Formats: sequence, structure tokens, C-alpha cells
Amino acid sequence: MIITLLTDFGDFYQGVMKGVILKINPKAVVVDISHSVEPQNVLQGAFLLYNAYRFFPNAVHIAVVDPGVGGKRRALAFECRNHIFIAPDNGIAYPSAKEDGIERVWIIDEGKTSKITGVLSNTFHGRDVFAPAGAYASIGLLKEVAEPYYGDFVKLELFDYIVEGNFIKCRVVFIDRFGNAVTNLKAEEIKGKYIVFEGIKIPIVRCYEEVEKGEPLALIGSFGTLELSVREGSFAEEFGVFSGDLIELKQI
Amino acid sequence: MIITLLTDFGDFYQGVMKGVILKINPKAVVVDISHSVEPQNVLQGAFLLYNAYRFFPNAVHIAVVDPGVGGKRRALAFECRNHIFIAPDNGIAYPSAKEDGIERVWIIDEGKTSKITGVLSNTFHGRDVFAPAGAYASIGLLKEVAEPYYGDFVKLELFDYIVEGNFIKCRVVFIDRFGNAVTNLKAEEIKGKYIVFEGIKIPIVRCYEEVEKGEPLALIGSFGTLELSVREGSFAEEFGVFSGDLIELKQI
Amino acid sequence: MIITLLTDFGDFYQGVMKGVILKINPKAVVVDISHSVEPQNVLQGAFLLYNAYRFFPNAVHIAVVDPGVGGKRRALAFECRNHIFIAPDNGIAYPSAKEDGIERVWIIDEGKTSKITGVLSNTFHGRDVFAPAGAYASIGLLKEVAEPYYGDFVKLELFDYIVEGNFIKCRVVFIDRFGNAVTNLKAEEIKGKYIVFEGIKIPIVRCYEEVEKGEPLALIGSFGTLELSVREGSFAEEFGVFSGDLIELKQI
Repeated sequence: MIITLLTDFGDFYQGVMKGVILKINPKAVVVDISHSVEPQNVLQGAFLLYNAYRFFPNAVHIAVVDPGVGGKRRALAFECRNHIFIAPDNGIAYPSAKEDGIERVWIIDEGKTSKITGVLSNTFHGRDVFAPAGAYASIGLLKEVAEPYYGDFVKLELFDYIVEGNFIKCRVVFIDRFGNAVTNLKAEEIKGKYIVFEGIKIPIVRCYEEVEKGEPLALIGSFGTLELSVREGSFAEEFGVFSGDLIELKQI
Repeated sequence: MIITLLTDFGDFYQGVMKGVILKINPKAVVVDISHSVEPQNVLQGAFLLYNAYRFFPNAVHIAVVDPGVGGKRRALAFECRNHIFIAPDNGIAYPSAKEDGIERVWIIDEGKTSKITGVLSNTFHGRDVFAPAGAYASIGLLKEVAEPYYGDFVKLELFDYIVEGNFIKCRVVFIDRFGNAVTNLKAEEIKGKYIVFEGIKIPIVRCYEEVEKGEPLALIGSFGTLELSVREGSFAEEFGVFSGDLIELKQI
Repeated sequence: MIITLLTDFGDFYQGVMKGVILKINPKAVVVDISHSVEPQNVLQGAFLLYNAYRFFPNAVHIAVVDPGVGGKRRALAFECRNHIFIAPDNGIAYPSAKEDGIERVWIIDEGKTSKITGVLSNTFHGRDVFAPAGAYASIGLLKEVAEPYYGDFVKLELFDYIVEGNFIKCRVVFIDRFGNAVTNLKAEEIKGKYIVFEGIKIPIVRCYEEVEKGEPLALIGSFGTLELSVREGSFAEEFGVFSGDLIELKQI
């Protein structure tokens, strides 16, 4: 069974999670989706998970961006039609779970998971709660560490943009390594030939090669949403845009 | 079958590629060579692949540094004596494929690969073209997504340095995490006892410990080429050298 | 058999090590603990390995932070009760090996390992010495590349802090991605309600949520040692603290 990991942990902590998983399920195939989510950016984690999980065969996905670690937030497992999502109850797994079709929700018992690992910290539930829960889920034994849950949970909305006529208010949800500013504005909203951003008219094109090197461009990227780029340059750096920014656009 | 990945994608996009691969070939062992190639630096990608592939058992190597993505460049597969290389036709896989011995070249049909994944973007052929092609190659079914190709392809030359007497003009092809400046100058060209770089006389040594901490040194590194280093320091930072720089040296 | 890797190599070099390993043992499950150890920071490498290995099932752990590469330092293998550690003789593996229980020490013969890989550089023993030794250890054939060793080796001490009454002198051993300053001061030394650092009184809490966003806090982190943090901020950046720093604290 494949177990994926998506966190804001950077290096090292993810390695410890793999140890915990392989101790419980030595046959698990552990795959990193990303450990570079912007620290504590739950929306970005949700957006990336949503755009990754569907490309995997049936799998357990452990997603940990968890500013509330050690506090009162719940640890949940969403058993869905094809996938199982293991995550803190802050909405990070919700858009993916909803799309896949939630069949049962579980609340993870950190007393039980930490008994397995022998340790319960207040800062690293990736190791002490989510990794063991994911490993148990991967061998069909989620019930050993979790109970069915019928209460509320956080329902995070990825596509909360506003379109009014030509005016658009949307969010930069991810800056990738190339400096592309990935927004949450769905392709279907794009009707114009240009995006106007901070007074600059940016052509909407099909691919990078349609503009000269160093020129800005807009296109529908691999997430199926609007991306703002500079050909062989960094839009984010040149325009001072950050992940999480609400931006106002006009399409003409 | 082992499938390696070498890209300039950083984190996340590589995770999606693994999902695509594992959906097609659940038994694939996917190994990251690097996702930190300098963005769009095809020469660096080619140099790193050339210095990695030979240490692997027979494998499929997917190499994607792809400034021309979504444009007219071809997507190719080089079936070689021991390895298969899947890459855009910009030369990134050529030095490796040539060394291993090209037996057949295939052109990948992005209509077919994207039918498998259900999506064809203009910006992420790692997911939509190269990952599915690599996965099919790993199960011996390249012909399902590609056709034999007898046309031209880009022949990139890694070792395009000039040596005239004591004067050398070569290229910095990689700055590693320690700040070592790895050049493309082959060991066999080194005959002197010192390298002169920007007026500074740098001793050619066997290992770092031969100079004091903080002192510059030159040696034949693990790539079999000249490297410029500072012991327990960063040559790249201290001398303002960047990957891609053409540098002029003198050996004495 | 699981083989873990912990290095200061960053990206790429680790990929080559995996090729070497899989060529010798195609069934190895290679797991990255971290490749982001601060360059040449042996103490940090030792601390991270010590806090990771115990969460793994029986495994071979290859740990390479190796400022003395190519010089006279030995390459060792510690065969312990449950785990095998492969590392340069600079202490990086010692605290882990000692805790697990050293049963036999081996000295690795780089002549033999490099005969297997076909190359012996003076700068990349991860590839030429440690990876092949680890791969041989994983198939029970360490004796093919190493000999029993009865001499001295470096005994590195992780917890070399000083506590005198309320005064503490300890070390920052790791700055994680969130900017938490992880020290080597064990939980059992903490008796007060506040840590005073550079004249600032920092509350000792159980979890981040006990202080307001942006406020500093101290807690026992997932390493079982004192950590200094800023809630949803970076302690390291705000207080100018670096990995390796000796710091003076007072608990009240």
C-alpha cells in the first residue's frame, strides 16, 4: 500500500515519520508529495494535496500542516471512496476527501498511537499521531487507533475567489520554484485576452514560448487555474507577490 | 524496475510524477537523483545525469529540465544498451545516452500519454508526458505511447572547454551545497601544480586537508573534473562564481 | 532491508549513493532521514541520527558528515544489537551506536569498496566507500569490504551541557524549518517556570497555543530537550541564534 506524505516539515522530521511507518508496516511504499509547504500555510497544503492525490492509485495520504499541534484540534481520518486521508482537523484534507467521496470519518486516539511509538510530544504529532495512524490505515487496522466520528469538522474552501464582470479578486496559493504565482482562479473564469495586474497588461497565452524571454505572461497552468509567470524569470520576485496574497485582477 | 527522476522542479511537482508512475507501474522503485537542478539549466541537468546514471543498475531515467515545455520541442526516449532515457529533445539526456550506446530513438506521443493520465497541460509535461512514458517504458510497453524516430535530435556537448598551452577556458557546471565550483574540465588536462584564477594562485591538491581551513584549493573531484573549493568554506560565495559561468584559468 | 541515509550533501549526491546501493542490493529500501545537515556539522548529524534511528525497525544507517574526507580518518561500521551504523570515524554515529549497544566494530577497506564501484575519489566517500559498505552490510556481507577493528574511535558526547543551580550553559544543536532552536538540554533539567535568555523572560509551556502569536516560548520538544520558539514565527531569526551556538540561560 502506498502512503504519501505532505507536510511543512522540510527535511529530517519526515524521515522520522518514515521510520515509524515502516516499523508498523514494513511493506509500505512511502512517497513524498512535498515537505516544502510554506510553514503553517494550511490553505497551500490543502491546494497541493488536492492537486496531487488524484494522480495516485488508491493510497493513504498523511497531510500535516498543523499550527494547532499539541492543542485542542482533533486528529482525523477521512475514509473515502478510493483514498484515506490522515490529517489534523484544520481543513487541509477536506477538499480532497470531499472530492473523492467521504464514506466514514474517524477520530484518532493519540493515547493509542503514542502507545505504539512509545512517545507523545506536544510538537510533533506527525511522528506520534499521524504516522502511526496512517500506517495502521494502510494495513486495514485504523480501528485499532481511531473511533468513528460523527461530529463537525473544518470545511475549508479552496476556490473562494470573487468574479464580478471583468473584475477578479483571487488568491495566490502557491509560488513554485520557478517563481510562477499559482492562483486559485479556475480556468473556466478566464474569458479575456489580457490580465491587468497593478496597471500592467499581461497577455493570456497557451505556453511560455509565446512571449519573449523576461516578459510576463498569464496562462492556465497544470493546476487548472490561472498562473502568472515571467518567461525564464520569476514573476513572484519581479512583482513582489507572496503565497497567500489576495490579488485584484481585471481581464480584458 | 528502477525509475529515476532528475528535474529542476524542486519539491511537489516531483511527487505528482511519482503518483502517475505508480498508477501505471505499482512495482516501480522510484528514485530521486535531484530536483534541484538550477531552473532551466539544461547543461547542468545533462552533466548531473551523466554523472549519476552509470552508478545505477539498468533503469529508466526521466530527466526533465524543459524551458520549451508546451512549445514545439519533441519528447524523446533513448533506448540504449543498458538504460532508457526519457527527456525533452534539448540535449539533457544525450551525453548519457550516447555513452551508454543508443540502440533506438522513440518520439513520445503526448496525445497518448495524456489520454492515460486524463490531462494535458502546457506547463507540466513531467506529469502529462514524461512520467507516463517512463512508466510504460519500465514495463516494456514504450511502443504504446511512442513511435520509432529516425530524425535529428539535439546533441549537447558537455566537455566544450578550450586548452591552449597553460591557458584554460572552461565552464562552471554545478555549484554544490558546500559551495564547490565543479567545472567541466577533465582530469587529464591538469598538468600543473597551481591553478591561477583571477590573479590568485590556488594549489592543486589531493584532498581538502592539505590546505588550512578557509584556504582555497583545486582538486579533481568526484565528477572526474576540476573543482575549485575553499576548505570548510564556500568557493562560490567567496569568489562570486555562479553555475554556468565561463571561467579563464592558467595552470602553472 | 532498510538502509537510511543522513548526510550534509543536499540534493544530487544522495541520488548517486542510491544508485550504488541498488546496484549491490536491488531489494534495499532506501530511506532519506535528512540531507540538510548543516555542512560539516558533525554534532548536528549525530544529534539528528540519535533522534531518528530508534524509530526505525532494524536497519543499516549510513551517516556521512565528513569534513575529513580523503584524509586519514577511518571509515567504520558499528554492528549493534539492532542496527548497523556506517560512518566516518568522527563521532557522528557513536551516540546512536552506544545506545543501541555496540557488539562489533569494523574498519571499512576503501580499496575493496571502490573496487566494487570502480571509482575512488578523495571527495565523495558517500559514493565510493559508505554506500557500498552499507549495501554489503544490508545483505550480511560486511566482511567482504571490512575487517574487525579493535582500536580507538571518536566518542562524541551529545549532552555536554552545564547546569549550576539556576544557570544553564547548553548548545543549540538544530534550527528546524520553523526557526525553532533545539538545544541539547535534557527535559529532566527543567524545573522552573521561565527561561531567561538575553534578559528576556520566556515562559515554559506545554504547547504553542499557550502563548499569543508572535510571542516567544520555551518547551520540551520532540527531541526530549529544551526548545526555544516563537509561536508562528522564527525564534532563530528573531533572536539571531545559530546552530552550534553555546547559549547561557537561567531558569526561574
